[in-house]
Amino acid sequence: MKKHNFSAGPCILPQEVFQEASQAILDFNDSGLSILEISHRSPAFVSVMEEARSLALELLGLKNKDYKALFLQGGASTQFLMAAYNLLEKKAAYLNTGTWSTKAIKEAKLFGEVVEVASSKDKNFNYIPKFFSVPDDADYFHCTSNNTIFGTQIKEFPSTSKPLVCDMSSDIFSRELDFSKFDLIYAGAQKNMGPAGTTLVVVKEDILGKVSREIPSMMNYSTHIGKDSMFNTPAVYAVYVSMLTLRWIKAKGGIKAMEDLNNKKAELIYAEIDRNPLFRGFAAKEDRSPMNATFNLTDESHKETFDKLWKDAGVNGLNGHRSVGGYRASMYNALSLESVQVVVDCMQELERKI
Amino acid sequence: MKKHNFSAGPCILPQEVFQEASQAILDFNDSGLSILEISHRSPAFVSVMEEARSLALELLGLKNKDYKALFLQGGASTQFLMAAYNLLEKKAAYLNTGTWSTKAIKEAKLFGEVVEVASSKDKNFNYIPKFFSVPDDADYFHCTSNNTIFGTQIKEFPSTSKPLVCDMSSDIFSRELDFSKFDLIYAGAQKNMGPAGTTLVVVKEDILGKVSREIPSMMNYSTHIGKDSMFNTPAVYAVYVSMLTLRWIKAKGGIKAMEDLNNKKAELIYAEIDRNPLFRGFAAKEDRSPMNATFNLTDESHKETFDKLWKDAGVNGLNGHRSVGGYRASMYNALSLESVQVVVDCMQELERKI
Repeated sequence: MKKHNFSAGPCILPQEVFQEASQAILDFNDSGLSILEISHRSPAFVSVMEEARSLALELLGLKNKDYKALFLQGGASTQFLMAAYNLLEKKAAYLNTGTWSTKAIKEAKLFGEVVEVASSKDKNFNYIPKFFSVPDDADYFHCTSNNTIFGTQIKEFPSTSKPLVCDMSSDIFSRELDFSKFDLIYAGAQKNMGPAGTTLVVVKEDILGKVSREIPSMMNYSTHIGKDSMFNTPAVYAVYVSMLTLRWIKAKGGIKAMEDLNNKKAELIYAEIDRNPLFRGFAAKEDRSPMNATFNLTDESHKETFDKLWKDAGVNGLNGHRSVGGYRASMYNALSLESVQVVVDCMQELERKI
Repeated sequence: MKKHNFSAGPCILPQEVFQEASQAILDFNDSGLSILEISHRSPAFVSVMEEARSLALELLGLKNKDYKALFLQGGASTQFLMAAYNLLEKKAAYLNTGTWSTKAIKEAKLFGEVVEVASSKDKNFNYIPKFFSVPDDADYFHCTSNNTIFGTQIKEFPSTSKPLVCDMSSDIFSRELDFSKFDLIYAGAQKNMGPAGTTLVVVKEDILGKVSREIPSMMNYSTHIGKDSMFNTPAVYAVYVSMLTLRWIKAKGGIKAMEDLNNKKAELIYAEIDRNPLFRGFAAKEDRSPMNATFNLTDESHKETFDKLWKDAGVNGLNGHRSVGGYRASMYNALSLESVQVVVDCMQELERKI
């Protein structure tokens, strides 16, 4: 039985991608070689890297603008550090919406003053702060677009004249936005874009080169831009599978098509969370994430019964993060509406049962 | 026709590993899920990570000693930086044996004084300097065990009371050494150990925590040790394939068995390089690497004929690096003696032809 995979990340990717990705391990493009054993300098892989970079910009509507796309290693956790290394001269402004923002703030503090413009920590990050201002002397403003753990998402990004930096790890390519408002976007691949092991960085070149410190080669965005994202051996296979996934997004109709389906999935599960008296949603309604629906049982004594129901139905990865408890349905691009219906059916079955 | 893959890295891995690695993309351990879509916190993947870390130490003879094995992202290029971040308080000693040593030196200079104890740059790095001393006040001594580009290998490591740090990217698990002489070993996986995208770090814990600077989380070995190499989402698939490759090394008889075969392959090709008047070796004989044999035509006008010969024979990746020119036969663990014989046959065929 194929599982309904609600993992928060690494997470479900399209079945078509798995098929092609599996074949390439045995024989990549009829070369007689595995994708794992070819040189990253071979024309075959250089073209994979170029297509991945190009598709990323195209899907975001940033092609032919002053942006570069990079596929780096180290995850968003390394970007917490790199963003500050490259941009923080004196002071930076951060919005704190959860675990990942908190980690980003911690790393940035090593490089300069960090102003936390607002935080939702007072309510265990179950909402997105709306009213705050970015200091005039901030080098940049940093935020996290979607909070996987708490199930919140920023719907409107603040207007600021400062460079806008955003960790979009858990909702990139899932909804339409005016991406040209952003100056630096980064995202670990392992949600909507590919497997763990590579991180997309989209950076507007004119924000670089403005800090006085000397930046180590691997931490310097300019190093990677100057070498077309091949300064060192890239994560060949993770970039390849990301490229396949980006092709799939494009073939399905791009971000707009992803957003339409993601909205349907979100409406389906949130309607049930709100209707079913056995469950309550965790995140504030206006800030609910279509990517990660967080919810709890109103009566914890039903946990064993409910867990058996969804596990028997072939559902995987529905347990909530320990910071929130309860359940989390992560519904990334490749998850079908049918899989969400299976969880909703389990929620309704629980209601009938007890 | 299956290719004879002499790529310098990423490079050939065992066919059995490719088979299992391909299957796991479709269905990992009969879980109904792809290895690419499972949580890195799932028991299934945690056990992969633990087995990889444990096998690495076991094969190196460092199990149950004061060493930790980590699988990190960012390649050896990030280790150039991390080694210095974690160990360089005032002064470090580096042996310069080529491109990678030079890059390691460059990054270390951002953190303190670097003494280049010796360099073979005077002869385009075709030998390993033998006579040098490590300053008494050095925080550590750093060297590169094998130089992929130039085809040289350190046969005897210097005795020093200082922590011994070694970039073993291109010969780890290929020969027996007393690895307990080393305090920090790092190696990008993409030669003898696995695909691109993960880097093995083996570190003796007592050398850590001695610098006064604050180290960013991702750059700090202690962070990763404290979280069992799962501080952030690891490169799941690259670690998995590395684990499969380490299992294969163990099943074949461990490092000793690898070394025996590697020596046979090296003897075969170097004997032909020395015998055949149409070729000359690049590296000094006593420093020749069994991993990468570098050689040139004595008469460049035969290039087209020779290139056609080996390409027609199904040989891949024999072109030398641009810094050396000519040819480079990279003969990592998974390459068979038969593949080396194919190249030797081509060299002899050239001699007959002209």
